[in-house]
Amino acid sequence: MKKDHDQNVEKLIEMAKGVRTCMLITNEKDAENLSGRPMSINKIDEDGCIWFFTKASSYKIDEIEESKKVSIAITNESSNNYLMIHGTATLVNDKTKMKELWSAIMKAWFPLGLDDPDMTLIKVTPNEVNYWDSSSSKMVVLFNILKAIVTGKEYAEGEHGKIKL
Amino acid sequence: MKKDHDQNVEKLIEMAKGVRTCMLITNEKDAENLSGRPMSINKIDEDGCIWFFTKASSYKIDEIEESKKVSIAITNESSNNYLMIHGTATLVNDKTKMKELWSAIMKAWFPLGLDDPDMTLIKVTPNEVNYWDSSSSKMVVLFNILKAIVTGKEYAEGEHGKIKL
Repeated sequence: MKKDHDQNVEKLIEMAKGVRTCMLITNEKDAENLSGRPMSINKIDEDGCIWFFTKASSYKIDEIEESKKVSIAITNESSNNYLMIHGTATLVNDKTKMKELWSAIMKAWFPLGLDDPDMTLIKVTPNEVNYWDSSSSKMVVLFNILKAIVTGKEYAEGEHGKIKL
Repeated sequence: MKKDHDQNVEKLIEMAKGVRTCMLITNEKDAENLSGRPMSINKIDEDGCIWFFTKASSYKIDEIEESKKVSIAITNESSNNYLMIHGTATLVNDKTKMKELWSAIMKAWFPLGLDDPDMTLIKVTPNEVNYWDSSSSKMVVLFNILKAIVTGKEYAEGEHGKIKL
């Protein structure tokens, strides 16, 4: 099981490779609509958890405090991979962890650096990862689409699966 | 009001330009998780409605029949635009409309062409569009991030707004 888990995490990391920005979707119970916003992925760790830096005062923190169930939509157009991840969000206010994940570029969003009192981490622990993995370049996808048209056979979109983490 | 509506639709079309694939998110009432899958956008029309071809037998059709409230996540990494659209889905089984939206490339998914009995259109009429519009190339975004780091001023992420359609 441990081995399966590691392989699943590897697959998740591989498919999200090169993606800087995902859509983090919170689901307020009585809200009219879902709530989504683009977020920079800081790291996907060896447990498959997805880490984000954010402002502690931002509205999404209130939403997460109300409901920890979140989803993450990733569209990786360069590699034609698509992910829909469901999981549980936790707010992590651990300076040691922040220091570990910090990089110089974060200064653009947090000019005060790690001393910024309005900084927190969101950790999303996935319980389900739905993926559409064509693992092909745009050229290959295009070629396969053309082949389907010419041969009259339905285009095989690549592998679609579900991972439980 | 008509003019506002037209301008809002224009903005929506402009921001989604060049995006082939979005994440269509359905929200089953008693489901454990949201349900999302990548979908090719066929067209955004002059009313701001977003059209998709799909198989009538696919599971998402059942979901839409149960709850017409859907969301669409668009991440346009090439132009650094991000959209979270909320709206109402309608199933459209109108052959004339299908003919209007049909293009040769659709044959890859529907080898039988417009005669395919397992074909339907999903029309999403948006009621709210949340957008994050940097309208900048990757180079400009990178430059602005670096500038923020050097000057110690927080990076201005570009325009964020909400359109009601």
